[in-house]
Amino acid sequence: MIILDGKITSQKIIDSLKIEISNLNFTPILDIIIVGNDPSSQKYVAMKQEKAQSIGIGGEIHQLSQDSTTEDILSLIQNLNQDQKVNAFMVQLPLPPQIDTQKVLSSINPQKDADGLSPFNLGLLFQKKSTGIASATALGIILLLEEYQIDISGKNTVIIGRSPEVSIPLFALLMAKNATVTICHTKTQNLKEICQKADILISSIGKPNFFGKDFIKPNAIIIDVGFVADPTTGKTTGDFDYDQVAPISSFITPVPGGVGPMTITSLLYNTVQIAKQSILL
Amino acid sequence: MIILDGKITSQKIIDSLKIEISNLNFTPILDIIIVGNDPSSQKYVAMKQEKAQSIGIGGEIHQLSQDSTTEDILSLIQNLNQDQKVNAFMVQLPLPPQIDTQKVLSSINPQKDADGLSPFNLGLLFQKKSTGIASATALGIILLLEEYQIDISGKNTVIIGRSPEVSIPLFALLMAKNATVTICHTKTQNLKEICQKADILISSIGKPNFFGKDFIKPNAIIIDVGFVADPTTGKTTGDFDYDQVAPISSFITPVPGGVGPMTITSLLYNTVQIAKQSILL
Repeated sequence: MIILDGKITSQKIIDSLKIEISNLNFTPILDIIIVGNDPSSQKYVAMKQEKAQSIGIGGEIHQLSQDSTTEDILSLIQNLNQDQKVNAFMVQLPLPPQIDTQKVLSSINPQKDADGLSPFNLGLLFQKKSTGIASATALGIILLLEEYQIDISGKNTVIIGRSPEVSIPLFALLMAKNATVTICHTKTQNLKEICQKADILISSIGKPNFFGKDFIKPNAIIIDVGFVADPTTGKTTGDFDYDQVAPISSFITPVPGGVGPMTITSLLYNTVQIAKQSILL
Repeated sequence: MIILDGKITSQKIIDSLKIEISNLNFTPILDIIIVGNDPSSQKYVAMKQEKAQSIGIGGEIHQLSQDSTTEDILSLIQNLNQDQKVNAFMVQLPLPPQIDTQKVLSSINPQKDADGLSPFNLGLLFQKKSTGIASATALGIILLLEEYQIDISGKNTVIIGRSPEVSIPLFALLMAKNATVTICHTKTQNLKEICQKADILISSIGKPNFFGKDFIKPNAIIIDVGFVADPTTGKTTGDFDYDQVAPISSFITPVPGGVGPMTITSLLYNTVQIAKQSILL
């Protein structure tokens, strides 16, 4: 069993992004919109800005109040869409319940969409020659698989969860690499049987230790996007019961230290691609 | 075995669309762009216009020459995007080889996209509360399943083919109805085994009689999007060997007369929805 190490892989990519940025003759700008004061979102945004600055990406955080309206956010997005100094920006999710998240994400200029969450970019991912910007979490998983030179072509791949932010773009990226992909969800009737046939098994349902070894085909590749506190131990835990599953898998992402670190890295990766593209325009 | 009759279902929907249009206080306009003189495209576009006119939809055909450039088409699309008299329009595919089809489809105003082929609409289909316009062929299949009150929720559904025009939007629509969906393609390694587990089996690969009864789970629902001339008989034929497969299936679409008629109907269905929406704007 080999651990898919998101920390080491992230650092390698971050190092090469830093070199790419130093070769640009300008500072790429990534702005971040955050609405409200959710502590984990605040912490996450601070981490993103810190990491961005550490490799030479500038930009500011736009803090909106918890009681903002959808229109408030759309108005700010319109400004950023038009501001030629801003190469890319993102909106930290989740947004407060009164906000129409889909409308917000739909209003982002697809060419500045650092987090790859606009529906236009999602649609582009499915085109034959995709030019879409991929969702950062989905891209992070692909970059991790690439780092370990895992051959995806023709593999039975099962994704549990159907979010348009992670599962669907991941589906598009894996299929573009010729995987045979199945998406399962709460209404799937024979989940265990389907998982048992998976060469690659990916979950983002956020249920601690949900998948035991009875779900796993020996030598499967396990990608764990789950990241929640286990209610009994309080420890950050993935969807897979790591102690049970790791010994029979061929590759596995730990939680924490697997997919998590790759997400911020991919956000910065997207930002650098957008900035490089802006030179060509 | 029950035949999913696309002709009868189309006629029912067409009849109700005609009533909906007669209740509007204006004539919905659907324009069609066609490039070059491919006989089957010409015939197909003529059928679309004739059917549209028969229920009170107006609009003109824009004929561009075979040697048109991508820019020629984009320029026409810009005009139609802005022309307030045109509610909806579509571009007949396939386009000549020198044309960047993805760029063309990406430039269509998503709110006028009668054929539902812009990447933005594809991306919207995957959102939780989808407001996207669905690809006409994919929507036609859903309308056919609905007409026969086929329960999709939790069903193992296998789609063979991965085109962004048919398979991917169909995947989105079926998943929104809680099906568990797998997409297979040329690189899938164990196609027969996967098909044998499908409660619903859908193919759009265009290989006459490719699937015999050995691919079929007894009582499966068979949706055949294939529509090509059999090289030996010259007869229009689907991807499934109908004589072998029909007796063991629970529902099946014939070719011709199954999915085919539903595609034009869905184009007109989309046009009417867009026209009704325009009253609210």
